[in-house]
Amino acid sequence: MASKNYYDVTEWPVGNPYEDIGEVINSIIADIKSRQTDTDVNKGGKPGAVIYIPPGDYHLGSQVVIDISYLKIMGSGHGFTSSSIRFNTSENEWADLHELWPGGSRILVDIPLEVNDEEYKGAAFYVERSGNPRISSVEFSDFCIDGLHFIEDGSRETNPENTYTNGKTGIYVASACDSFRITGMGFVYLEHGITIYHADALTIHDNFIAECGNCIELRGWGQASKITDNLIGAGFKGYSIYAQNFGGLLITANNVFPRGASSIYFDGATRSSITNNRLHSFYPGMVVFRGNCSENLVSSNHFLRDHEPWTPFLGIDNGLDDLYGLLYISGNNNSVIANHFSEGINTQNIKPVGATPVIIRIVSGNGNYISNNHVVATEVHAKISDSCFSAQVDALLTTEASEPLTVTTVLVEKESLQNTILDSGSDAQVVMDKTLNAFRATPTPGA
Amino acid sequence: MASKNYYDVTEWPVGNPYEDIGEVINSIIADIKSRQTDTDVNKGGKPGAVIYIPPGDYHLGSQVVIDISYLKIMGSGHGFTSSSIRFNTSENEWADLHELWPGGSRILVDIPLEVNDEEYKGAAFYVERSGNPRISSVEFSDFCIDGLHFIEDGSRETNPENTYTNGKTGIYVASACDSFRITGMGFVYLEHGITIYHADALTIHDNFIAECGNCIELRGWGQASKITDNLIGAGFKGYSIYAQNFGGLLITANNVFPRGASSIYFDGATRSSITNNRLHSFYPGMVVFRGNCSENLVSSNHFLRDHEPWTPFLGIDNGLDDLYGLLYISGNNNSVIANHFSEGINTQNIKPVGATPVIIRIVSGNGNYISNNHVVATEVHAKISDSCFSAQVDALLTTEASEPLTVTTVLVEKESLQNTILDSGSDAQVVMDKTLNAFRATPTPGA
Amino acid sequence: MASKNYYDVTEWPVGNPYEDIGEVINSIIADIKSRQTDTDVNKGGKPGAVIYIPPGDYHLGSQVVIDISYLKIMGSGHGFTSSSIRFNTSENEWADLHELWPGGSRILVDIPLEVNDEEYKGAAFYVERSGNPRISSVEFSDFCIDGLHFIEDGSRETNPENTYTNGKTGIYVASACDSFRITGMGFVYLEHGITIYHADALTIHDNFIAECGNCIELRGWGQASKITDNLIGAGFKGYSIYAQNFGGLLITANNVFPRGASSIYFDGATRSSITNNRLHSFYPGMVVFRGNCSENLVSSNHFLRDHEPWTPFLGIDNGLDDLYGLLYISGNNNSVIANHFSEGINTQNIKPVGATPVIIRIVSGNGNYISNNHVVATEVHAKISDSCFSAQVDALLTTEASEPLTVTTVLVEKESLQNTILDSGSDAQVVMDKTLNAFRATPTPGA
Repeated sequence: MASKNYYDVTEWPVGNPYEDIGEVINSIIADIKSRQTDTDVNKGGKPGAVIYIPPGDYHLGSQVVIDISYLKIMGSGHGFTSSSIRFNTSENEWADLHELWPGGSRILVDIPLEVNDEEYKGAAFYVERSGNPRISSVEFSDFCIDGLHFIEDGSRETNPENTYTNGKTGIYVASACDSFRITGMGFVYLEHGITIYHADALTIHDNFIAECGNCIELRGWGQASKITDNLIGAGFKGYSIYAQNFGGLLITANNVFPRGASSIYFDGATRSSITNNRLHSFYPGMVVFRGNCSENLVSSNHFLRDHEPWTPFLGIDNGLDDLYGLLYISGNNNSVIANHFSEGINTQNIKPVGATPVIIRIVSGNGNYISNNHVVATEVHAKISDSCFSAQVDALLTTEASEPLTVTTVLVEKESLQNTILDSGSDAQVVMDKTLNAFRATPTPGA
Repeated sequence: MASKNYYDVTEWPVGNPYEDIGEVINSIIADIKSRQTDTDVNKGGKPGAVIYIPPGDYHLGSQVVIDISYLKIMGSGHGFTSSSIRFNTSENEWADLHELWPGGSRILVDIPLEVNDEEYKGAAFYVERSGNPRISSVEFSDFCIDGLHFIEDGSRETNPENTYTNGKTGIYVASACDSFRITGMGFVYLEHGITIYHADALTIHDNFIAECGNCIELRGWGQASKITDNLIGAGFKGYSIYAQNFGGLLITANNVFPRGASSIYFDGATRSSITNNRLHSFYPGMVVFRGNCSENLVSSNHFLRDHEPWTPFLGIDNGLDDLYGLLYISGNNNSVIANHFSEGINTQNIKPVGATPVIIRIVSGNGNYISNNHVVATEVHAKISDSCFSAQVDALLTTEASEPLTVTTVLVEKESLQNTILDSGSDAQVVMDKTLNAFRATPTPGA
Repeated sequence: MASKNYYDVTEWPVGNPYEDIGEVINSIIADIKSRQTDTDVNKGGKPGAVIYIPPGDYHLGSQVVIDISYLKIMGSGHGFTSSSIRFNTSENEWADLHELWPGGSRILVDIPLEVNDEEYKGAAFYVERSGNPRISSVEFSDFCIDGLHFIEDGSRETNPENTYTNGKTGIYVASACDSFRITGMGFVYLEHGITIYHADALTIHDNFIAECGNCIELRGWGQASKITDNLIGAGFKGYSIYAQNFGGLLITANNVFPRGASSIYFDGATRSSITNNRLHSFYPGMVVFRGNCSENLVSSNHFLRDHEPWTPFLGIDNGLDDLYGLLYISGNNNSVIANHFSEGINTQNIKPVGATPVIIRIVSGNGNYISNNHVVATEVHAKISDSCFSAQVDALLTTEASEPLTVTTVLVEKESLQNTILDSGSDAQVVMDKTLNAFRATPTPGA
């Protein structure tokens, strides 16, 4: 390779990437900055560089600090495996396992943390730059960031590997950023997978982000970005996808597994789209709009809510009851059109006891348009298994012999007015003041 | 490259990749296994490797057998071209062609096969491992797998290159797998492109899989996977996308061309999504739900069915008649919302003669919700051409001067009850027992 | 690298890639052609090659001419930054900017152009080949094409960097092509980003194409292609996405920003899908169907139209007034289902003065199906800012305290008949001959 802008962490003379890849990458970044000093040389000057991480196990003890644009960090393998299954396998079986750890181009996040450290200090990759322009076109591609272990968090959880707590973050972007790309990555066993403040034109595409306390958090504010085609699944305490004060966010083609406390959580997000995703959860509150979320579109999504089938997480939930709604809306002028909702639960588990579960719930705000959603609610007798995989598959494929479950398909609270509810439930299934909201019942067979 | 976990097939000392890349890759895998022997060394141990295939023609005589996780095999070119057009071009024109064969990083599948060999023996890449954990994060990226020729299959097909039969498979995964990725690949002239048993969290994204007998087959059972953003088109005998006993599958953003016997075939698939695809077929039975497929969502898809315009395949079909339905449903509680259906056929070709073609057909199962689908049916006089490309483009763009064609937009068989059919056809176009199913006709202009 | 089919522009002995990468790549292509001469050697012969461009600033003075299949040109960084913001920053602040130019693997298009040169002469990459087969599987991946500057165009625009005019094109494909791929690229400050004639099975996926006069133009005719998951935003004079005489095009999962004259423009396109996109514009005419566009599906899109908030472009528009429609349809049998439309404008800015703005407008053609679209129209008092980013974010997030705005949600002109308009506006909001078109009003709260 004749170009000085291509770096391989295993060939860099400073540091040992297997012992501390953070030191190596920081040294490379320093080298780029020492070579690319002038902003305007013959119409160029700071093109950045690519840092390649071949497959291997790389401990990261020093946080990587990125403050240059056009830096691409890439590996050759997202390396996901289920650490959750491994850590919930009896230790006496470990000797028989083919692998114990994730792999690929794998960063082992080994940053020493103090109890009261600020959150960002636990980030493997920390991006921050003040001044102008906003840092642009930093790319992360095709490698794995592994937090290794969760730890005791003071909860009653007996296996510390199930706490989803360790103070570690994969990628943390602290300052406003433009045109970043995160693609083909694997994130596992981090308390926070990706945390980004003030994003513009961000791409989070085709990643595998699972068994993290939280997966994707877009904080502060942001605009015109996309979260597309990812496999995602947070822990029971956290967010799978979270967006704060965001406009023009497109969330599509994601397959969001359990067991996040929510699948998608909007806090003051507007004019954004949640379309065409497959969402699966073990709890209510799958999609939540808080803080006056307005003019968003929720369309062509498949919502599935059923019960936890895997032994280690039995009895755990997100604290919400069945009156909360699978889709919870606070805000104005949102559209909820052409979604499918499947709720398969055991009436004995309904909270509060005897309640009629709610599917779509509008708690405040006016002018929402809820149309042509199909709700399938069935009473199921969930099976429980020690095998995570077969338990889920069994549950997913069980549709025979299920009894209908009475639900409220749409509940509009009194604080919300002027909504339009069409073809999303029968007269009995839609609970609201029908003089203050518009309504057309789904026609009923035989009626 | 200082890392031992990066391999280039053209630099490996064992075997000759141009003569038998299978021998080379198997030797590399053996090397990885000999070096990565310990499952737990300083929190790692088996990170896997990447094997790079530069552009070139690589014969594969020995099947590649993969039984390690975190192996990535990548090239630099999906290399698709239409072998079908080439093999249906007169041989005396071949000398004038710029290229005769596909290219890129191209595997030529030359495995010697016996007539009664089991299917998996014809696979270029065979993945199998028993024990725990399931084999994880094997990745195939950016190369081409070419089956070279189809062969005589005893049918009346006069050109053996049009049989879609040769006993060859591109990638065959026999045992349960997790977090596999297949991206940026090209598959051509294989009897089976991708065959995967027992998939979990599988990604099949942004590939070109065409002119294969079957393109994607997910067999056995599986869950929580995605087939997204692919260009796909099987032969007239086979599946473009097939899924068996699958839960939580997301099929979206695919452009599925003719001439598969079906575009998407579900056998006992549940709680899955077929959303936002463009589907084109020359036969009925475009999307088929067999074996009690329940709680699936079919939304925002564009269905187009018209006639074969290309001379070599005239007279061939998938054996289904026009009463079968473009969308055939056996199952409960499915949602079919906001789809567009275009059927442009010649009344003289309708089978049985004089029949009224069916668009959506529910043959069994209850509680399906069919809403806001738009059916456009026109009588067309299909043109036929010796040029595959111009024939299709002409047909696609011909919409002028077409006469309306009478169709049944929704047919609910007597075995199916309690369905809801809304705004998906006029009273005359929706055929069912309207006392046992709910119905609202699409309003008619002037009515 | 033992393979001769892998080239690195920085290692090639002919030319200097930093001075003229065009000369280098053309020399490499000549080398490929000199080595790969035979079309049929042991079932192969012309596999093509990959040309790698490491991160860096590469001037291109000589146009790259591509006439071989299976050529992949790839970099390691899409390198986008906002040149528009930079060029609208006061020059005396430039010294304080971290970067002035885009980066990554960056091509600086420096082709000397004469005033009356034909358009293709300004293309950095020019693809053309006559004869058969059509040129196939050329791939562009992960690099940046930068047009550097816009120039005076005779308009009243005072800053020539805001004209979106410079005669430069990124990629220009002149002859029929098959199975091309453009992925992970950045395009900036080009008059035309991607111009492709006669495309078949084209993939334009996951690119960043912005601040170009026009972004994607598919000309002539074409079929069975996809434009997916891109970030796109043309200049005020041009097309973000344009398709001519195209059948079976799938446009999905794109986030299309302002300020293109249109977001998506179809000229005679048929049986195509615009689904699941996020579209944002400062002008009417966001999606335009001209020239008898028929049997297309527009579904699950989020349309947002508001006012320009950034000082440098105040007062500029695309020349269309508010009666034109955000979605303009000329054609038959199209489907418009389950879309969200937000229009937030200042009544004082409405053109013509006092007019009632139109959202969906059908000007000609019959049989269109417009169903379950939600229109949110509000009076806003747009803020203006010298900061491009904060101005847009502020506007996007402002939904409080907005007053409803009276609009025509659907206008069907007299030339168009037999359309069906359902649940897309009240009786007053839908303007058409209700005896010649079918209509069902969205139920009104309290009615």
